[in-house]
Amino acid sequence: MPKGFTLWFTGLSGAGKSTLAEAVAQELTKRGRKYDILDGDEVRTHLSQGLGFSKEDRDTNIKRIGWVASKITKHGGIAITAAISPYRATRDWCRELISQEGGFIEVYCAAPLEVCERRDVKGLYKKARAGEITQFTGIDDPYEPPLNPEIILETHKESVAESTAKIIQTLERLGYL
Amino acid sequence: MPKGFTLWFTGLSGAGKSTLAEAVAQELTKRGRKYDILDGDEVRTHLSQGLGFSKEDRDTNIKRIGWVASKITKHGGIAITAAISPYRATRDWCRELISQEGGFIEVYCAAPLEVCERRDVKGLYKKARAGEITQFTGIDDPYEPPLNPEIILETHKESVAESTAKIIQTLERLGYL
Repeated sequence: MPKGFTLWFTGLSGAGKSTLAEAVAQELTKRGRKYDILDGDEVRTHLSQGLGFSKEDRDTNIKRIGWVASKITKHGGIAITAAISPYRATRDWCRELISQEGGFIEVYCAAPLEVCERRDVKGLYKKARAGEITQFTGIDDPYEPPLNPEIILETHKESVAESTAKIIQTLERLGYL
Repeated sequence: MPKGFTLWFTGLSGAGKSTLAEAVAQELTKRGRKYDILDGDEVRTHLSQGLGFSKEDRDTNIKRIGWVASKITKHGGIAITAAISPYRATRDWCRELISQEGGFIEVYCAAPLEVCERRDVKGLYKKARAGEITQFTGIDDPYEPPLNPEIILETHKESVAESTAKIIQTLERLGYL
């Protein structure tokens, strides 16, 4: 059975998490591997409807993602998570849980706030600055960057292809692919 | 890769779901297969904290179990669910979802109410009759038995060993083991 693992993207809204998750997924498909992308929106639909964006609700949501990822990892699958997952302690809780079942690779999409805000793909930063949405990571809610991620991607400087190649190379080097 | 499947127990509280889930799990371990038991209590801890026992909340809880079971099944694992899952339409929703990823085997633990109530392993029927807990399946909330389950177990007449053997034989016959 192939070794299961979780590829855990973290970074600000607009830092490239979902785009890279999809790009990595395409590479995995080429290699005949099955995966599941657990992004913030999908999980909020299936697992966390009714939760808001307070610290407590965010933690609950991220822990649920971590729990599902641990199950996928246990059974030899590949879980790709693409939620902001802003709090370090909560990510470390997930690392601990998932590492008991297989691999855990934290991928920090390090584009700084000013770049993400300039891109503003979903128009959310504008709304956050206008006070239309609150508790928005980077504006009025903190983002705690990882201290020792397995992969750091300078998504404000690298192309999607370059970042994807770095991830795939790391997965190969670590023996997951 | 082995074919993933979900073994979906359903039946009243005290009908033997968790006992049989554990007994089947032992057989799977002997065969070198990995599994996850998703019982009502575990899922309420990890995925559904805050949900109650209204029809809507029960449905949400069961659908979350179904969603996680579908992920385990997709990756070639074995999910064993042991929640009461009282509503037929909700079980059928899960069957539909999980069948897209692998096998779905519904196991109806058919011990009737009077037997379950006489056993009253957790003391819950007594509390329900006394009105200390409400919306209790079989007392003041309905249980809708499956119309076409893959396996029916007369858990009020059969021993645990007999019921377990029936399940394993069916899994072998259907090509899952």
